[in-house]
Formats: sequence, C-alpha cells, structure tokens
Amino acid sequence: MSSTLIKGKYMLCQVSDQDTIELISDGAVFQKNGEIIDVGKYDIIKARYSADEEIGSDQHMILPGLVNAHQHGRGVPYALIGTPDDNLELWLIKRMEGKPVDQYLDTMYCIARLIESGVTTVMHCHIPKSPHYEEEVMSILKAYQDGGIRVAFALGIRNQNYLVYQDHHKFLDSLPPLLATRARQYLADITISEEEYFTLFARLYKEYGANTSPKMRILHGPVGPQWCSDELLIRIKQSADEYQTGIHAHMLETIYQKLYALKRFGKTFVKHLNDIGFLGPQVSFAHCVWATENDIELLAKSGASVCHNPSSNLRLKSGIAPVNRMLDRGVNVALGMDSQSINDDEDMLQELRLCANLHHTPGLGKRSPTAGQLLKMVTVNGAKATLFSNQIGTLEKGKRADIILVNLKSISEPYLDPELDIMNVLLSRGKASDIDTVMIDGEIVLRNRKHTRINRDKIVTQLRESLSRGLQPSDIERVRLAQELRPHIVKFYEDWQEPVARPYYVYNSA
Amino acid sequence: MSSTLIKGKYMLCQVSDQDTIELISDGAVFQKNGEIIDVGKYDIIKARYSADEEIGSDQHMILPGLVNAHQHGRGVPYALIGTPDDNLELWLIKRMEGKPVDQYLDTMYCIARLIESGVTTVMHCHIPKSPHYEEEVMSILKAYQDGGIRVAFALGIRNQNYLVYQDHHKFLDSLPPLLATRARQYLADITISEEEYFTLFARLYKEYGANTSPKMRILHGPVGPQWCSDELLIRIKQSADEYQTGIHAHMLETIYQKLYALKRFGKTFVKHLNDIGFLGPQVSFAHCVWATENDIELLAKSGASVCHNPSSNLRLKSGIAPVNRMLDRGVNVALGMDSQSINDDEDMLQELRLCANLHHTPGLGKRSPTAGQLLKMVTVNGAKATLFSNQIGTLEKGKRADIILVNLKSISEPYLDPELDIMNVLLSRGKASDIDTVMIDGEIVLRNRKHTRINRDKIVTQLRESLSRGLQPSDIERVRLAQELRPHIVKFYEDWQEPVARPYYVYNSA
Repeated sequence: MSSTLIKGKYMLCQVSDQDTIELISDGAVFQKNGEIIDVGKYDIIKARYSADEEIGSDQHMILPGLVNAHQHGRGVPYALIGTPDDNLELWLIKRMEGKPVDQYLDTMYCIARLIESGVTTVMHCHIPKSPHYEEEVMSILKAYQDGGIRVAFALGIRNQNYLVYQDHHKFLDSLPPLLATRARQYLADITISEEEYFTLFARLYKEYGANTSPKMRILHGPVGPQWCSDELLIRIKQSADEYQTGIHAHMLETIYQKLYALKRFGKTFVKHLNDIGFLGPQVSFAHCVWATENDIELLAKSGASVCHNPSSNLRLKSGIAPVNRMLDRGVNVALGMDSQSINDDEDMLQELRLCANLHHTPGLGKRSPTAGQLLKMVTVNGAKATLFSNQIGTLEKGKRADIILVNLKSISEPYLDPELDIMNVLLSRGKASDIDTVMIDGEIVLRNRKHTRINRDKIVTQLRESLSRGLQPSDIERVRLAQELRPHIVKFYEDWQEPVARPYYVYNSA
Repeated sequence: MSSTLIKGKYMLCQVSDQDTIELISDGAVFQKNGEIIDVGKYDIIKARYSADEEIGSDQHMILPGLVNAHQHGRGVPYALIGTPDDNLELWLIKRMEGKPVDQYLDTMYCIARLIESGVTTVMHCHIPKSPHYEEEVMSILKAYQDGGIRVAFALGIRNQNYLVYQDHHKFLDSLPPLLATRARQYLADITISEEEYFTLFARLYKEYGANTSPKMRILHGPVGPQWCSDELLIRIKQSADEYQTGIHAHMLETIYQKLYALKRFGKTFVKHLNDIGFLGPQVSFAHCVWATENDIELLAKSGASVCHNPSSNLRLKSGIAPVNRMLDRGVNVALGMDSQSINDDEDMLQELRLCANLHHTPGLGKRSPTAGQLLKMVTVNGAKATLFSNQIGTLEKGKRADIILVNLKSISEPYLDPELDIMNVLLSRGKASDIDTVMIDGEIVLRNRKHTRINRDKIVTQLRESLSRGLQPSDIERVRLAQELRPHIVKFYEDWQEPVARPYYVYNSA
C-alpha cells in the first residue's frame, strides 16, 4: 500500500446537483491506500502531505475514473467474430453463428481496452451463453479479479421467448418439425433452472464480499422483461430486496420490444413492471430507446437508472433514446458502451461525445444535454447505477481513489487559449488515446499508456491462437441451426408495425 | 518522376454502378508519373513491370484516395478558437468572436490533417472572411499548391442577409442606431462587389490551369441561396456554363433556411433554384438536411450532387439529412467533414461510419446505406462533386494515382478471420490512425505516418505563436459587436416554427 500525489493543470472534482462543474486549476489530489485523503490547490496539498510518489504535471487534467454502466465483457469485437451490425432481433440469431471465445481471455481483453479508455468501473451485464453456466461465470469473475477494474456484475438469467418475442414453445411448434427438434435441443443445453441461478447468486454474493468489498458488487441480471417471466422477475425483486442489492436489465431496446409488451400486457413494460412492484432506486435499465413519456415519468418517480447506449443503439438499428426528456424529468441517466462503441474501440470519451451530439435537437432554444449533465452520466450517475455511489464518482475526501490523467498535448494542438472553457475542449476533443494514466482504488493500472497489471500482448496472442482454430462439430451444428432459423425469425416480425409514431426529436422533415 | 508498385493483401479497385465492390486479394497497382498503368494480382503486376520503388505488404489494404467533398480549409479546430458547437445561426455570430488565424497556416494545417486521414481530394468551400479578399484567397491557394492535395476550390461570395435570414438593411434598421452603425461598418469591410468577385474568378480560372491541370479545379462558390440574391445566382450560373465549371453552395442546412425560403418565395429553395434554371450536374450542395421529398426528386433529376455532412449536422444542431431517400432516388451523395468532424480529428473513415450509423433506421427491412453506397460516397461520388471524375475515384488504368494504404494490424487485433467480409471490417473499425501511406498524383505525401511535403511541426509552432498573441483593437471591436448582436439574432428567430413536421426517420416514439 502506498500514497500518491497527483498533479494537474485542471482537476475536475465533481459535478454538483445543480450541474455545476467544480474545477480546480493547478490542482492536486492526495491518496493513501486507495482512499482520497485530500483535494485542493497543488501548492497546498504538496506542502501538507508527503507522498511515496508524485504523478501528473502541468500538461495533465485530472478526472474521476469513468463509469461504463452497461456492457457484456466482450473484448473481441463483434465485427471480428462474424456478427456485423444489424437489427437486434436478427443480430441475436447471427450471434449464435459466432465463434466461441474463451470467457476469461475475452473479459480480460475487454478490461484492458476499457482501462485504456479511462474506464475504472464497469457494469457487466452477463448473458448466459454456454451450457456450462457456473464455469462461465467463474471465469468472468476471475478475469475481473485479475484485471483490477471495479465491477458491478449482474448475473444473467432468462427463461422465455428465447428466439422471438413469443412463448418459445409456441414459436417452436410453428417451425418445421426437424428444425424445431434441433432448436429444442440447443435451448435445453443453454437453459438454466431458477434453482441453479438463485443458488449461484447466493454463493457469489457471499464469496465476493456481500457487496461490501471495495471493488465488486453482485447484482441480479434478468436479461430483459421479454426474456423473463413475471414469476421470475418477482422472485428476483424479492431476492434483491432481501440481499439489499441491485438489478440490471435491458429495457425497450427496440420497437419490437415495445410492441410485444403492448400485445402481451396491453400496457408498456415499464407500466407493467411498476404494477408488479419491480421498479425502484436499485434497479437500472439499459437502452430505454422506446420508452413513452409515461414510462419516463414512472422511471423518474421510482428512482431507477437508465444506462444509455448511444453507439449500440445506432449500430443495432434500435434508434435514439429520448435522453433529453429523461434528464428533464430527473431520471438518473448513466452511459454504457454495450461492447458496441461506434468505432469499435471502446472509447468512453467518444461515446460521451456521440451522446452529446445525438441529443442536439435542431432549433434555437431546443434542449441539448449540458456539459454538467454529460459529465455526471459517466461519473456520479454511473456510480449510482453500479451501486458504488459511496465509493466513487467524485474526487473528494473519503472516496476511493479512481483517478485518470488526461494528457492535454494532443487536444490542445496547436494552441490552448487559457480563456477557453476547458471542459468544452475536453468534451469536444478528448479521446481514449489522450488518457495516459489510470488509477483504480489507489493502484496505477495504466502508466504512460502501458498496463501494469495486465499482460496485454499475451492475452492478444492467446485470443488469436484460440480464434484461429476451426469450428468444433457442435459449433457447426449451432451455425447451421442459426442460419436455418433466421428466415423464420424475419417472417415472425413481418407484420409488427407501430400504428402511429410521434418521435421525441425531429431531425428533418419531408 | 518515378514509378511505384503498391502491394496489398486486399485492394479495393472500385465500386461499380450496381454498388458491387470490386476487390482483389493479394493485389497490386502499378503507377508511373502519377498515372495508374495497371492493377491486378500482385504476382502478375510484379512480373509485368519494373518499378523504382515497391511499397505496401501483406499487412496492408489498398484503397483509392478518399474525397472530402465539403470543408472550409479550417485547420485550427473551432473548439480551440472559442467557437463551441451551437445552432448554426448562433454559431455564425459566435464565430465572429473567434481569433483571426493566418489563412495560409490554417489551410496548410488542415491539409496535413486531411492527408493523415487518407483524404487526397478536397472541396474547399471558401467563405469570405477578412476585408482583404484577394490576398486571403491567394494565401489559401498557395497552401494547396504547397500542400500537394488535390483540391476543388469554390470561390466564395455572398451579397445579402449577412446577419439573419432577412434583408440586412431591414434587420439593421431594427437595431439600436449605434449598434446598427457599427454593424454596417463591419459589413462594409467584408463585403465584396460582384465585379471584384467575377474578376478574381476569371483570373484564378486562367492562372490555375482552366480546370485542366491535374490537381486544381476552380469553381463558383455562392455561399448559399439565403446569402445570395437571385441576380447573383443567375449570373454565377451563366458564368459556370460559360467556363464549363462547377458550382458549390450550402443548401438547407437548418430548418430556419427552409422556413426562410417558404417566406421569401412561397416555395422551397430547391424548387426556386430549379425554376430559375440553376440546378444541373455541375452543381453540388452541402448539407440538404431539410430537403423535402420533392426537393430530392428535383436534385436527382437535375444530376446535382449532395455533399452530406453527418458530424457537422449534429454538432451545429442542424439535424440528420434524409440520405436513404436521396440514395433511393438516385442523388449523387458525397461526404464532407465541413471542418467539423465529430471527434474534431478530421477522421474521414470515422465520418463514413457515423454516416452509416445515423442512417440505420429502426425496424427489420428498413433501409440502411449499403457498404457499396458508403464507399462510393467517399470515392466516385466525391470525384463527381469535385469535378475530378475522369481523374480519380477508382483504381483503374488511366486514372491518376491517388492511393492510400491501410495498415491492417490494429483493425485485425486480435484475429482477422480470412472468412470475414473485409470491407465490413474496414467500415466497422478503420480509423485515420490506420492509414500509414498516402499517395497523391503519384507522389507519396505521407509515408509511415510521416509527412514528406509538409513540415507539420513548423506549421503547428507558427500557429501556436500567432494564436498566443493578444487581440488587436479591430478584433476587440468585432468581438463586442458580435456579443451585442447576439440577443437580437436570438429574438429574430423566436417565432420561426415549422407548423407540421413529418420526419423521414423515426428513431423512437413518445
């Protein structure tokens, strides 16, 4: 354990409730054993403490570590495993064709890339993939322990509508009998029983510190309301209350999910979940692209978080979430890259910029997110969604030392006028490549863009070796099955149309 | 003069009219004295020609040089000269507050950044800025000659509505008298007479090779229909016909421009320009965000080009252009960064990716631009808009040698499966930083990411020195004037509302 003095030309301490950015110029933060002991002007902090090491400079900006509030631990880009961008519903079946990737290596590679991007805390939304549920989960958690990033791990489960938004038995009955049999076999292999799920949850919760350890939270992760029965959701909610933990799920990512809820319940998912008592401040939902105004009201009232995914929503043709409306209603909006960032490079500052730009609605006086609102998304709001509010999100006395250093050299070329609003410059121009040092819980995990904990080259080599192997017979059957199921899935959604659409933002007109 | 053999694991030769991508694996192109002599399989080309130099490798992809079909030669990012993103109408007045930047250095820095991004041809949309019109223009053109990039230079002029979309005399009369007097003085200083404009145009056209020189085209550049009288536009059109050159202008960038045309003419700008005989295949328009369906039909019929600017349209809160509709109607859509790329880094591959993603409309079976359509935007379609169709846009015998090499190392980490669609991988993951070699007209201008022609460090140093100087008294008056005009401009647009908006794409619904 050790102490560090971190110096910066500018230091973003926090964004207050009034969206006021608290910035200290020529500032410093002092941490000891992972705890922030003091922040202030460099001269004062320097005189006050004796540090084992001093990092940073007049060419750096200090920021709280960034929070990526929704992702799947996918390190190998989808484009490289044969899952090109497409509508979610078709992309999911295409993903079945992808080469299996070693879970530990994939997660570790993801962690490495996130750290390079200044992400110090991540929400891992676990999707059960392989027939070896427990083994898969333990590999992922091992990677997080080895990788050193702070993580909220939402243990995944789904128990219905595996292939389309319809009872899967009914859907399977509609398929040619042989295809249905093969699909049933595949689904049986990847299905987890509720008992298996709750037993593993209880074990993980206990083993990983009962949500009191500094770097790990165990959450419930029902994959989404279209994929989980009401009975399961209610049981999960009870368990979450009992363990005083959170729940993370997908919500209204696509228009088809919106239409499914209306068909199934005669009301929206959010209204339905509200009616069964599922909503609350410990619950966070990814996407929410197709939330109605009433849904947004309900989310705000319940204190639930929305984890917005601008890149992913474009790449998977989901749309653009009504984030300005959410912000206006007081929803806690966090930001996630969903392992689908627009340039496929896991650049969190770029993701934030895309978010800012997509919600620039045309017209003088029309709403855009403010700089403070944007910065909150990747700090305090993300901290709330990941259940780390007491530990991270701001640079202030008593918080854990998750701190990143942005090198100002590149963003200030050719000249940074001291009169300029530095946060505007960062939000306009900062990229992952500008982040040269990352500290998590007091430990420097990236120093001058070199990992100190992760052997990145080794991970890449191991992934390359594993991916260059041919498919196994079971893989080949899965690929064929996916290819044969696809036209039936396309056909299933053929008639699903929203009768009248009133968009939140109008970007042009015919 | 010399000859070069360029080798690549993959070579994109061209996208045919049917949007078919012609790709050669293990390919090569041979150029001599700036002309493409042959393309084909590496073994064959290698055996057939003896080259002075061989570049490229099995780790490279060969592409035709990219065309940035709309920009303003701005090298110093707007964020660094105090012009943060805002609605165009307010941004324009804010830009008045910006520090003046040396035109030669600014253009040269811009050229350097474009070359680093694989751009080999650029449309420079000139906006008259300083009171020294001719000197300003000559500085810019000198930079293009020194910088070595291929350029279509559209000489700028505007003669009305300088501050808002209304006769500026009328607008000035509505201001407090002293403010009006100061604004009149400012406008008098930057106003160019038509005679001055046409005389300079004739001189440039002649001096720069009467549009037959390989690397320079001189076009007319009326800044936009809201800023040019009908008389001026008609005279420009006649001149363009006489010189057989092109016209490049802004068009329907914002909803206020759409509303202005309806107020002024009782019809859309495009309809009006069609009625006065202005449209045609030599005409290109930037933006076109707010074009109606009928406008798109007229543009398609006339053969005019649209230079789409996805980043700029987001950053300046203009909106999202109906590009899918344009493509469906057969409009020649090119792509431009408008000196406003989303990450402020002039990354043309990223711009193309943003374009692809913004036009992913939600819903199965809904239109997205195809890979072929996207690649055409930055090659042949851009070549048409810049009047270089006969010279560039494809890698085929007889074309000029504008060729870029993409290093596949980064985009194929951890593993590039040979079964994958390589163009999908490039479009999903390629960035400016992957481009390591750029050839323009047979000359290597970037080699292993180092400029051979431009002394980039010197330009940056000179820009820094010039920008760190304080404002001159005349600058201070201009800044104050802009600040005082701003509230009047906000007030002017207060009641401008589109009565009913029917958007092309619906990204979500309330």
